[in-house]
Amino acid sequence: MSFCPNCGQPLTRKIPPGDHLLRYVCTACGTIHYQNPRIIAGCVIETEGKLLLCKRAIEPRLGYWTHPAGFMENGESVAQGAAREAMEEALAKVKIGSLLSIVNVLHAHQVHITYRATLAEPGYGVGVESLETRLYDEAEIPWQDIAFLSVRFALQRYLEDRRLGVERMHGQDIDWQHGKLVTTER
Amino acid sequence: MSFCPNCGQPLTRKIPPGDHLLRYVCTACGTIHYQNPRIIAGCVIETEGKLLLCKRAIEPRLGYWTHPAGFMENGESVAQGAAREAMEEALAKVKIGSLLSIVNVLHAHQVHITYRATLAEPGYGVGVESLETRLYDEAEIPWQDIAFLSVRFALQRYLEDRRLGVERMHGQDIDWQHGKLVTTER
Repeated sequence: MSFCPNCGQPLTRKIPPGDHLLRYVCTACGTIHYQNPRIIAGCVIETEGKLLLCKRAIEPRLGYWTHPAGFMENGESVAQGAAREAMEEALAKVKIGSLLSIVNVLHAHQVHITYRATLAEPGYGVGVESLETRLYDEAEIPWQDIAFLSVRFALQRYLEDRRLGVERMHGQDIDWQHGKLVTTER
Repeated sequence: MSFCPNCGQPLTRKIPPGDHLLRYVCTACGTIHYQNPRIIAGCVIETEGKLLLCKRAIEPRLGYWTHPAGFMENGESVAQGAAREAMEEALAKVKIGSLLSIVNVLHAHQVHITYRATLAEPGYGVGVESLETRLYDEAEIPWQDIAFLSVRFALQRYLEDRRLGVERMHGQDIDWQHGKLVTTER
Protein backbone atom coordinates (compact mmCIF):
# COMPACT_ATOMS: atom_id res chain seq x y z
CA MET A 1 0.00 0.00 0.00
CA SER A 2 1.72 3.19 -1.25
CA PHE A 3 -0.98 5.67 -2.30
CA CYS A 4 -4.15 7.00 -0.63
CA PRO A 5 -7.27 5.24 -2.00
CA ASN A 6 -9.24 8.44 -1.28
CA CYS A 7 -7.07 11.11 -2.96
CA GLY A 8 -4.26 9.28 -4.80
CA GLN A 9 -1.42 11.03 -2.93
CA PRO A 10 1.51 9.18 -1.24
CA LEU A 11 1.02 7.41 2.09
CA THR A 12 3.38 7.36 5.03
CA ARG A 13 3.45 4.99 8.01
CA LYS A 14 3.07 6.53 11.46
CA ILE A 15 1.30 6.10 14.77
CA PRO A 16 -1.72 8.43 14.78
CA PRO A 17 -2.48 10.47 17.95
CA GLY A 18 -4.27 8.28 20.51
CA ASP A 19 -3.25 5.10 18.68
CA HIS A 20 -0.42 2.68 19.50
CA LEU A 21 0.18 0.95 16.16
CA LEU A 22 1.79 2.03 12.87
CA ARG A 23 -0.87 2.89 10.29
CA TYR A 24 -0.89 3.99 6.68
CA VAL A 25 -1.69 7.73 6.80
CA CYS A 26 -2.14 10.01 3.77
CA THR A 27 0.45 12.82 3.51
CA ALA A 28 -2.11 15.02 1.76
CA CYS A 29 -5.64 14.42 3.14
CA GLY A 30 -4.62 12.80 6.44
CA THR A 31 -6.94 9.80 6.11
CA ILE A 32 -5.86 6.81 8.23
CA HIS A 33 -6.11 3.49 6.36
CA TYR A 34 -6.55 0.61 8.81
CA GLN A 35 -5.73 -2.93 7.76
CA ASN A 36 -7.57 -5.86 9.28
CA PRO A 37 -7.66 -9.66 9.05
CA ARG A 38 -9.85 -11.26 6.44
CA ILE A 39 -12.24 -14.18 6.91
CA ILE A 40 -11.93 -17.41 4.96
CA ALA A 41 -15.37 -19.07 5.03
CA GLY A 42 -15.54 -22.82 4.45
CA CYS A 43 -17.44 -26.03 5.10
CA VAL A 44 -16.74 -29.73 5.56
CA ILE A 45 -19.43 -31.48 3.49
CA GLU A 46 -20.57 -34.98 4.39
CA THR A 47 -22.79 -37.14 2.23
CA GLU A 48 -23.35 -40.92 2.45
CA GLY A 49 -20.75 -40.98 5.24
CA LYS A 50 -18.05 -39.54 2.98
CA LEU A 51 -16.42 -36.10 2.80
CA LEU A 52 -16.43 -34.01 -0.37
CA LEU A 53 -12.95 -32.61 -1.11
CA CYS A 54 -11.61 -30.46 -3.96
CA LYS A 55 -8.20 -30.60 -5.65
CA ARG A 56 -7.10 -26.98 -6.03
CA ALA A 57 -6.71 -25.60 -9.57
CA ILE A 58 -5.20 -22.32 -8.32
CA GLU A 59 -2.25 -21.15 -6.26
CA PRO A 60 -1.42 -21.28 -3.45
CA ARG A 61 -1.17 -25.06 -3.06
CA LEU A 62 -2.30 -25.92 -6.58
CA GLY A 63 -2.91 -29.68 -6.83
CA TYR A 64 -3.52 -30.15 -3.10
CA TRP A 65 -6.81 -31.12 -1.50
CA THR A 66 -9.15 -28.94 0.54
CA HIS A 67 -12.74 -28.64 1.66
CA PRO A 68 -14.50 -25.73 -0.11
CA ALA A 69 -13.34 -22.40 1.39
CA GLY A 70 -12.52 -18.88 0.28
CA PHE A 71 -12.58 -15.18 1.10
CA MET A 72 -15.86 -14.01 2.58
CA GLU A 73 -17.53 -11.25 0.52
CA ASN A 74 -19.24 -8.06 1.66
CA GLY A 75 -23.01 -8.47 1.97
CA GLU A 76 -23.06 -12.12 2.99
CA SER A 77 -22.87 -13.99 6.31
CA VAL A 78 -20.02 -16.39 7.08
CA ALA A 79 -22.39 -19.33 6.53
CA GLN A 80 -23.60 -17.88 3.20
CA GLY A 81 -19.96 -17.46 2.17
CA ALA A 82 -19.24 -21.08 3.03
CA ALA A 83 -22.24 -22.24 0.99
CA ARG A 84 -21.22 -20.03 -1.95
CA GLU A 85 -17.72 -21.52 -1.94
CA ALA A 86 -19.21 -25.05 -1.97
CA MET A 87 -21.17 -24.10 -5.09
CA GLU A 88 -18.22 -22.37 -6.79
CA GLU A 89 -15.59 -25.03 -6.07
CA ALA A 90 -17.66 -28.24 -6.07
CA LEU A 91 -20.97 -27.26 -7.76
CA ALA A 92 -22.57 -28.49 -4.53
CA LYS A 93 -25.75 -27.05 -3.06
CA VAL A 94 -25.24 -27.47 0.68
CA LYS A 95 -27.16 -27.07 3.92
CA ILE A 96 -24.90 -25.40 6.47
CA GLY A 97 -24.91 -26.97 9.95
CA SER A 98 -23.04 -26.24 13.17
CA LEU A 99 -19.82 -24.30 13.59
CA LEU A 100 -16.82 -26.65 13.38
CA SER A 101 -13.71 -24.51 13.81
CA ILE A 102 -12.15 -21.07 14.03
CA VAL A 103 -8.47 -21.01 13.07
CA ASN A 104 -6.48 -17.78 13.44
CA VAL A 105 -3.64 -17.69 10.89
CA LEU A 106 -1.76 -14.82 12.47
CA HIS A 107 1.08 -14.31 9.97
CA ALA A 108 -1.37 -14.33 7.04
CA HIS A 109 -3.84 -11.94 8.72
CA GLN A 110 -6.64 -14.45 8.19
CA VAL A 111 -9.35 -16.11 10.28
CA HIS A 112 -10.58 -19.41 8.85
CA ILE A 113 -14.18 -20.12 9.94
CA THR A 114 -15.50 -23.55 8.97
CA TYR A 115 -18.97 -25.07 9.31
CA ARG A 116 -20.29 -28.60 9.08
CA ALA A 117 -22.50 -29.12 6.01
CA THR A 118 -24.51 -31.73 4.14
CA LEU A 119 -25.68 -31.87 0.52
CA ALA A 120 -29.05 -30.11 0.20
CA GLU A 121 -29.46 -31.73 -3.23
CA PRO A 122 -27.76 -34.84 -4.61
CA GLY A 123 -24.85 -34.32 -6.94
CA TYR A 124 -21.67 -32.29 -7.18
CA GLY A 125 -19.14 -31.36 -9.84
CA VAL A 126 -15.87 -29.64 -10.60
CA GLY A 127 -15.89 -25.83 -10.26
CA VAL A 128 -13.46 -23.60 -12.16
CA GLU A 129 -11.13 -23.31 -9.15
CA SER A 130 -10.89 -27.12 -8.84
CA LEU A 131 -9.04 -29.74 -10.90
CA GLU A 132 -11.11 -32.58 -9.46
CA THR A 133 -13.64 -33.20 -6.70
CA ARG A 134 -14.17 -36.49 -4.92
CA LEU A 135 -15.99 -38.13 -2.03
CA TYR A 136 -13.53 -39.63 0.43
CA ASP A 137 -14.10 -42.31 3.04
CA GLU A 138 -12.34 -41.49 6.30
CA ALA A 139 -9.67 -44.14 5.62
CA GLU A 140 -8.92 -42.74 2.13
CA ILE A 141 -8.37 -39.07 2.98
CA PRO A 142 -5.08 -37.97 1.36
CA TRP A 143 -3.51 -36.54 4.54
CA GLN A 144 -0.13 -36.06 2.83
CA ASP A 145 -1.73 -33.87 0.16
CA ILE A 146 -3.97 -31.59 2.23
CA ALA A 147 -3.57 -27.95 1.14
CA PHE A 148 -3.46 -26.07 4.46
CA LEU A 149 -2.95 -26.71 8.19
CA SER A 150 -6.36 -25.19 8.92
CA VAL A 151 -7.99 -27.68 6.53
CA ARG A 152 -6.19 -30.60 8.18
CA PHE A 153 -7.34 -29.34 11.58
CA ALA A 154 -10.98 -28.98 10.50
CA LEU A 155 -11.05 -32.44 8.89
CA GLN A 156 -9.38 -34.12 11.88
CA ARG A 157 -11.71 -32.53 14.42
CA TYR A 158 -14.73 -33.24 12.22
CA LEU A 159 -13.88 -36.94 12.10
CA GLU A 160 -13.05 -37.17 15.82
CA ASP A 161 -16.36 -35.53 16.74
CA ARG A 162 -18.24 -37.82 14.35
CA ARG A 163 -16.75 -40.89 16.04
CA LEU A 164 -17.84 -39.49 19.43
CA GLY A 165 -21.29 -38.46 18.18
CA VAL A 166 -20.78 -34.81 19.16
CA GLU A 167 -20.55 -31.47 17.33
CA ARG A 168 -18.13 -29.20 19.16
CA MET A 169 -16.46 -25.94 18.13
CA HIS A 170 -12.68 -26.18 17.89
CA GLY A 171 -10.13 -23.36 17.95
CA GLN A 172 -6.54 -23.18 16.73
CA ASP A 173 -3.90 -20.48 16.33
CA ILE A 174 -1.21 -20.83 13.64
CA ASP A 175 1.83 -18.53 13.66
CA TRP A 176 5.48 -18.32 12.60
CA GLN A 177 7.77 -18.51 15.62
CA HIS A 178 11.56 -18.71 15.32
CA GLY A 179 11.36 -19.61 11.65
CA LYS A 180 8.74 -22.33 11.80
CA LEU A 181 4.97 -22.67 11.86
CA VAL A 182 3.60 -23.38 15.32
CA THR A 183 0.03 -24.53 15.93
CA THR A 184 -1.74 -24.11 19.28
CA GLU A 185 -5.16 -25.56 20.01
CA ARG A 186 -7.48 -23.22 21.93
CA MET B 1 -12.22 4.14 -2.82
CA SER B 2 -11.15 6.20 -5.88
CA PHE B 3 -7.42 5.66 -6.44
CA CYS B 4 -5.17 2.59 -6.66
CA PRO B 5 -3.28 2.01 -3.37
CA ASN B 6 -0.47 0.42 -5.41
CA CYS B 7 0.18 3.06 -8.11
CA GLY B 8 -2.01 6.10 -7.25
CA GLN B 9 -3.93 6.10 -10.55
CA PRO B 10 -7.76 6.22 -10.82
CA LEU B 11 -9.85 3.11 -10.14
CA THR B 12 -12.88 1.90 -12.05
CA ARG B 13 -15.55 -0.61 -11.03
CA LYS B 14 -15.97 -3.67 -13.20
CA ILE B 15 -16.41 -7.43 -13.10
CA PRO B 16 -12.98 -9.01 -13.73
CA PRO B 17 -12.75 -12.04 -16.08
CA GLY B 18 -13.81 -15.21 -14.26
CA ASP B 19 -15.43 -13.22 -11.45
CA HIS B 20 -19.12 -12.44 -10.91
CA LEU B 21 -19.01 -9.32 -8.70
CA LEU B 22 -18.12 -5.67 -9.31
CA ARG B 23 -14.59 -4.91 -8.03
CA TYR B 24 -12.38 -1.86 -7.85
CA VAL B 25 -9.85 -2.31 -10.67
CA CYS B 26 -6.94 0.04 -11.46
CA THR B 27 -7.16 1.73 -14.87
CA ALA B 28 -3.34 1.86 -15.06
CA CYS B 29 -1.77 -1.22 -13.41
CA GLY B 30 -4.86 -3.47 -13.52
CA THR B 31 -4.67 -4.51 -9.86
CA ILE B 32 -7.99 -5.79 -8.49
CA HIS B 33 -8.78 -4.44 -5.02
CA TYR B 34 -11.10 -6.80 -3.15
CA GLN B 35 -13.14 -5.57 -0.20
CA ASN B 36 -14.07 -7.92 2.60
CA PRO B 37 -15.97 -7.86 5.90
CA ARG B 38 -14.11 -6.89 9.04
CA ILE B 39 -14.19 -8.65 12.41
CA ILE B 40 -15.31 -6.91 15.60
CA ALA B 41 -13.75 -8.87 18.50
CA GLY B 42 -15.41 -8.56 21.91
CA CYS B 43 -16.07 -10.21 25.26
CA VAL B 44 -18.78 -10.32 27.91
CA ILE B 45 -16.88 -10.07 31.20
CA GLU B 46 -18.34 -11.54 34.38
CA THR B 47 -16.96 -10.96 37.87
CA GLU B 48 -18.71 -11.52 41.21
CA GLY B 49 -21.83 -12.49 39.27
CA LYS B 50 -22.00 -9.10 37.55
CA LEU B 51 -21.25 -7.98 33.97
CA LEU B 52 -18.68 -5.26 33.20
CA LEU B 53 -20.09 -2.73 30.72
CA CYS B 54 -18.62 0.44 29.19
CA LYS B 55 -20.39 3.69 28.32
CA ARG B 56 -19.06 4.71 24.90
CA ALA B 57 -17.02 7.94 24.65
CA ILE B 58 -16.87 7.76 20.84
CA GLU B 59 -19.27 7.65 17.93
CA PRO B 60 -21.19 5.74 16.78
CA ARG B 61 -23.59 5.45 19.74
CA LEU B 62 -21.68 7.78 22.05
CA GLY B 63 -23.16 7.58 25.56
CA TYR B 64 -24.63 4.10 25.07
CA TRP B 65 -23.49 0.94 26.86
CA THR B 66 -21.56 -1.99 25.44
CA HIS B 67 -19.32 -4.86 26.42
CA PRO B 68 -15.71 -4.24 25.30
CA ALA B 69 -15.39 -4.79 21.52
CA GLY B 70 -13.58 -3.32 18.55
CA PHE B 71 -11.91 -3.95 15.20
CA MET B 72 -9.57 -6.95 15.21
CA GLU B 73 -5.98 -6.04 14.27
CA ASN B 74 -3.54 -7.84 11.98
CA GLY B 75 -1.19 -10.16 13.91
CA GLU B 76 -3.60 -11.13 16.69
CA SER B 77 -6.21 -13.86 17.16
CA VAL B 78 -9.89 -13.04 17.67
CA ALA B 79 -9.52 -13.92 21.37
CA GLN B 80 -6.42 -11.74 21.70
CA GLY B 81 -8.31 -8.89 20.06
CA ALA B 82 -11.19 -9.33 22.51
CA ALA B 83 -8.75 -9.27 25.47
CA ARG B 84 -7.00 -6.18 24.06
CA GLU B 85 -10.31 -4.34 23.76
CA ALA B 86 -11.14 -5.19 27.40
CA MET B 87 -7.83 -3.61 28.43
CA GLU B 88 -8.28 -0.55 26.18
CA GLU B 89 -11.90 0.20 27.05
CA ALA B 90 -12.16 -0.98 30.66
CA LEU B 91 -8.51 -1.33 31.83
CA ALA B 92 -9.46 -4.94 32.57
CA LYS B 93 -7.04 -7.87 32.32
CA VAL B 94 -9.28 -10.75 31.29
CA LYS B 95 -9.15 -14.50 30.80
CA ILE B 96 -10.99 -15.39 27.60
CA GLY B 97 -13.38 -18.34 27.86
CA SER B 98 -15.73 -20.04 25.41
CA LEU B 99 -17.18 -18.60 22.22
CA LEU B 100 -20.51 -16.87 22.94
CA SER B 101 -21.76 -15.50 19.62
CA ILE B 102 -21.12 -14.76 15.97
CA VAL B 103 -23.29 -11.97 14.58
CA ASN B 104 -23.14 -11.12 10.88
CA VAL B 105 -23.99 -7.45 10.32
CA LEU B 106 -24.50 -7.67 6.59
CA HIS B 107 -25.13 -4.02 5.68
CA ALA B 108 -22.09 -2.89 7.69
CA HIS B 109 -19.78 -5.59 6.25
CA GLN B 110 -18.90 -6.71 9.77
CA VAL B 111 -18.78 -9.98 11.72
CA HIS B 112 -19.07 -9.51 15.49
CA ILE B 113 -17.36 -12.38 17.33
CA THR B 114 -17.84 -12.36 21.10
CA TYR B 115 -16.32 -14.57 23.83
CA ARG B 116 -17.17 -15.17 27.45
CA ALA B 117 -14.52 -13.79 29.81
CA THR B 118 -13.66 -13.36 33.48
CA LEU B 119 -11.29 -10.96 35.22
CA ALA B 120 -7.78 -12.44 35.35
CA GLU B 121 -6.85 -9.83 37.97
CA PRO B 122 -9.16 -7.83 40.25
CA GLY B 123 -9.91 -4.28 39.24
CA TYR B 124 -10.97 -2.32 36.20
CA GLY B 125 -11.12 1.31 35.12
CA VAL B 126 -12.18 3.74 32.44
CA GLY B 127 -10.26 3.56 29.15
CA VAL B 128 -9.96 6.51 26.76
CA GLU B 129 -12.81 5.24 24.56
CA SER B 130 -15.17 5.02 27.56
CA LEU B 131 -16.99 7.69 29.58
CA GLU B 132 -17.69 5.29 32.45
CA THR B 133 -17.43 1.59 33.24
CA ARG B 134 -19.62 -0.29 35.69
CA LEU B 135 -20.50 -3.73 37.00
CA TYR B 136 -24.15 -4.52 36.39
CA ASP B 137 -26.34 -7.09 38.10
CA GLU B 138 -28.61 -8.86 35.63
CA ALA B 139 -31.64 -6.92 36.88
CA GLU B 140 -29.88 -3.55 36.46
CA ILE B 141 -28.67 -3.86 32.86
CA PRO B 142 -29.72 -0.70 30.97
CA TRP B 143 -31.47 -2.49 28.09
CA GLN B 144 -32.87 0.78 26.70
CA ASP B 145 -29.37 2.22 26.41
CA ILE B 146 -27.44 -0.67 24.84
CA ALA B 147 -25.27 0.55 21.94
CA PHE B 148 -25.81 -2.14 19.29
CA LEU B 149 -28.17 -5.01 18.44
CA SER B 150 -25.24 -7.42 18.45
CA VAL B 151 -24.35 -6.36 22.02
CA ARG B 152 -27.96 -6.86 23.16
CA PHE B 153 -27.96 -10.31 21.54
CA ALA B 154 -24.68 -11.35 23.20
CA LEU B 155 -25.77 -10.13 26.65
CA GLN B 156 -29.21 -11.77 26.40
CA ARG B 157 -27.80 -15.12 25.30
CA TYR B 158 -25.05 -14.93 27.92
CA LEU B 159 -27.60 -14.46 30.70
CA GLU B 160 -29.97 -17.15 29.37
CA ASP B 161 -27.13 -19.67 29.18
CA ARG B 162 -25.95 -18.73 32.67
CA ARG B 163 -29.43 -19.43 34.06
CA LEU B 164 -29.39 -22.82 32.33
CA GLY B 165 -25.81 -23.60 33.37
CA VAL B 166 -24.65 -24.07 29.77
CA GLU B 167 -22.19 -22.32 27.42
CA ARG B 168 -23.50 -22.49 23.88
CA MET B 169 -22.49 -20.65 20.72
CA HIS B 170 -25.21 -18.41 19.30
CA GLY B 171 -25.54 -17.01 15.79
CA GLN B 172 -27.47 -14.05 14.43
CA ASP B 173 -27.72 -12.22 11.10
CA ILE B 174 -28.65 -8.52 11.03
CA ASP B 175 -29.58 -6.83 7.74
CA TRP B 176 -31.61 -3.96 6.29
CA GLN B 177 -34.69 -5.26 4.49
CA HIS B 178 -37.38 -2.96 3.09
CA GLY B 179 -36.10 -0.01 5.08
CA LYS B 180 -35.76 -1.62 8.48
CA LEU B 181 -33.26 -3.73 10.41
CA VAL B 182 -34.21 -7.40 10.52
CA THR B 183 -32.56 -9.87 12.90
CA THR B 184 -32.54 -13.62 12.29
CA GLU B 185 -31.21 -16.13 14.80
CA ARG B 186 -29.15 -18.93 13.25
